This record gives sequence, structure tokens and C-alpha cells, in this order.
Amino acid sequence: MNKQQLIEQIQKKQSFLCIGLDTDIDKIPQNLLATDDPVFEFNKQIINHTAQYAVAYKPNTAFYEVYGAKGWQSLERTVQYLRNNHPDIFIIADAKRGDIGNTSANYAKAFFNSLKVDALTVAPYMGKDSVSPFLNFDGKWVILLALTSNAGSKDFQYLNVGERLLHQQVLQKATEWASSEQMMFVVGATHPEELGDIRKQLPDYFFLVPGVGAQGGDLQAVAKNGINKECGLLVNSSRGIIYASNGSDFAVKAGEEAHKLQSQMAAILKENGLI
Amino acid sequence: MNKQQLIEQIQKKQSFLCIGLDTDIDKIPQNLLATDDPVFEFNKQIINHTAQYAVAYKPNTAFYEVYGAKGWQSLERTVQYLRNNHPDIFIIADAKRGDIGNTSANYAKAFFNSLKVDALTVAPYMGKDSVSPFLNFDGKWVILLALTSNAGSKDFQYLNVGERLLHQQVLQKATEWASSEQMMFVVGATHPEELGDIRKQLPDYFFLVPGVGAQGGDLQAVAKNGINKECGLLVNSSRGIIYASNGSDFAVKAGEEAHKLQSQMAAILKENGLI
Repeated sequence: MNKQQLIEQIQKKQSFLCIGLDTDIDKIPQNLLATDDPVFEFNKQIINHTAQYAVAYKPNTAFYEVYGAKGWQSLERTVQYLRNNHPDIFIIADAKRGDIGNTSANYAKAFFNSLKVDALTVAPYMGKDSVSPFLNFDGKWVILLALTSNAGSKDFQYLNVGERLLHQQVLQKATEWASSEQMMFVVGATHPEELGDIRKQLPDYFFLVPGVGAQGGDLQAVAKNGINKECGLLVNSSRGIIYASNGSDFAVKAGEEAHKLQSQMAAILKENGLI
Repeated sequence: MNKQQLIEQIQKKQSFLCIGLDTDIDKIPQNLLATDDPVFEFNKQIINHTAQYAVAYKPNTAFYEVYGAKGWQSLERTVQYLRNNHPDIFIIADAKRGDIGNTSANYAKAFFNSLKVDALTVAPYMGKDSVSPFLNFDGKWVILLALTSNAGSKDFQYLNVGERLLHQQVLQKATEWASSEQMMFVVGATHPEELGDIRKQLPDYFFLVPGVGAQGGDLQAVAKNGINKECGLLVNSSRGIIYASNGSDFAVKAGEEAHKLQSQMAAILKENGLI
């Protein structure tokens, strides 16, 4: 999916919502455990009740790898289900990969050719040749970690490196590697002021913004500081949506939570003259 | 495996060799492709011919994920085969994971409880709470990226952050999170001088040193700069060993290459009074 197509989806659905599929078998309704693939079954029902409100889904690979090969199969089924039933959805594998060149090339094949997602989160620490193999795929995206939503983001990402902070230097370097047609950045909702600074630094790039909801980030503050003339935001919510209820109504309640966020997003898009 | 047990293995085998199982189906002998699980079959034969010369194996997850759920199964079989046949081998999953706390906790379960490896490589960019969930497992190790072997290591790892370089700051911070009984660091063989500086900074920690062989690093320089009073080194070779031949003699040739490196390591250990 290219940038223009993503923007069209945002306008059509009046939403810049990304739903995180961090599916934890200990948190899903017990009756699903009797099915052959409870993780996929949960995801399928969540998708059925939320897809009209979201432009993107973001399965986090940790929640699948924890079940080994079987978990990887649940991930494959989930992506396939999205592809078959919602071809216009932007699918992000939140995997935070990154390694030396010939290894990153294999990760790229794993996610873009085998799993067939649209985008992959990538860690920047190993530099250009660890990121560039992911940029050789038409219509596929790198979403590079810049300023993450967790407390530990303070340990290294705020270090002064000359005139900039480390995360600003990562952003600056990375814009030399890829344009806003191929790269996005992770900027946590828990840093609304810095999000404003980063938007000034990079007016054209999309940001994937995690941390709204369970982690304490606020949608209005994110929109105020991060929105650009094309929207430029994918705001992720995981636990706040998929675990809205742990009863048999879990998918319906997830749909209601997604709808609430989508309504707020529609208002924000209107206020900003984007729809 | 604890530190003392690892040191005993190094002394017993007169080796600090780690063999990287970066198994690429395009590079393995064609006759293996007829087997049910060519990747595992290749690994099994490599292990059979090299295990007497190595103290550690390091499958890199990218080379398994590229085949999806089937690849993950090859990885599980490989680890299980090592566990059953060589219980004294130190097994490292080279996965370079790292995410917010509750996600890292799932990666930790995936690798330490499900896959049952001894150690996992972890990326430092997201800071303390992305690393600490991996430290809650008895006898398991975090191997944190510090100074990597690739050209891109120059992009961020050498940035000046106050009085130190970024990789030195990562090392310094991480020693506050875990002792040398639970944490090691990745330091590339392609930076022998910096390896010496890092050894001065951290006299007691083990270093996992990739980059000898195909990437151009030199074993003698690594030993000269990196060895400590307990050895303190695991030197990795991947392609130089496992692809020593692509004929039917691949495993025998791999054994010969591993033996060559082990002989050089035995001499180094003797020179340093460690055996």
C-alpha cells in the first residue's frame, strides 16, 4: 500500500486508528480455549467487529512467538484473514527487528514476502545497513523506532549528541535513507511535547503513535501536536480495545471501544479540514 | 547454564568457539532438499561434526522466520537436538529482541521457557524496562548489543554522549541492570581497538564477538584485546564454518574448519595460562 492509498483509507473511514493485536491467551475468554487456534479465533472476531473503524492492524510478534511454531501459524492465519476479508487494511508487524545486512535481508523476506505484511517496525541501533535491506520492497514500509512510549525511552533516546538528542539524530539520519513514501517513525503518545518538536523536524512523514490508553497517552494531545496536512498519524490502541471485556461479548465491546476512538478521530479530522 | 559452568566447558574443550547456525536453504547441499526438514537436517549434521570443538551454538532467528511456522519448527528441532545430545552446550538465540515491558516479558517466555535457549541477544535502544524482563529467569542470559560488527555501527554507536561514546554509555548503564553472571555484550571483531577499551571498562563480563571470518575480523586481535582472566570471550563464526563446502562433504569440512579455530583457541588459552 502506498502513501496516497493510506491517506484515502483514512479519509474514507474517517479514522487513523491502528488496532494492536497483542493477543494473550491468559486474557481471552475461556470458551475460546476449546477451539483449535484460540489466538486466531479471538483475532478473527475482534477484526470482524472493529475493521470498519480502523485503517491498520498491528500484531506484535512477541505474543505469537511465545507459542512457538503454533503461534507463528496463528500470526500467519491472522494476516491471511485480514488480506482476504479487508484488502484495504494496512498491516504492520510490530517486530522491532534489525541486524547486519544479510540477516536483515532475511527478516525482510520473512515479513514482506512470506508473511506479506505492509510494514515492519525496525530498531535503529545498528545503523543504515541494518535498515536498508527492508527498503528494497515496492509498496512496503519501514517504521523505525525513534522515541518510544515506555519509561526506558529516557535511558538513551534523550541523550545529548552534539546539537540534538539521540532520537532526533536517528530521525535526521533516517530521512537520508528513505522518503516519507517508504518510511514512518514510532513516536510514543506519552511524549506529546516532543511529538510536536518531531513534527516540526519532519513535516511530511507518518508517525505510528503507540501508548494511547493503557500506557496513559492522550489522543487529543497527540492530534494537536502530531497532525499534518495529510493527517500523518496512525494512533495505536491495543489493550484498551481488545480487552474491553473478557466475557462472551468481548468482540462487541471491542467494536464499541474502536467506534468511540474512531468518532473522536473523525472530529479531529474535520476540525483540521482533512475530511 | 551459569558463568562457572560455561568457564568449565571452555577449559574442558579448550575452545571459546560459538558456531552461528545461519542456515540458508539456497546455500545448503541440494540433496538435503529432498528431506522433510532440510534446515534441521543440515543443522543436525553440522552439529554432529562440530560439537566437540564448540562451547556454544547461535541460531539466528531471521534464517528460520523466513520460512514461517515451518522455519520456527526447524529452530525448535535444532534447539531440542542440541539439548538432547549435547546438554553442556550453551545455546544463544540471536534474535535482537526488545520492546516495552509486557511485550519483552512475552519474548522472554518465548525464548527461555518455550524454546529453552540459554541466552538471547537484546537491542538496547528502548532502555532498562525493555531489557529487565529478560533478567527474571534463573540461569538465563541477556546478551546486549553494544558495538556491532557491521558498517552501520558507525551511524549511532560512536556518537559522543557527554564524556563517552554511545556504546560505552550503553555498557555503563547496563552494568547497573545486571552483573556478569547474567549479562554479556555483543562486541564486533571488526573493532579490535575498541574491544580493548571495552575490556578495560568491563573487566569481568563475557563478550560475544561476531565478525571473525566472512566479515573480516581476526581471532588473534580479538584475543589480544578482549581476553580476561576467565577467558571472557565467545567468538562466533557462522558462514566460514557451515558453508566451508556445499558438497556432500559439507559437515566434514565444517568440522575441519571448526577444528582449525579450536586449535588456535587452545593455543591462545595456553598462552594466557587459562588451561
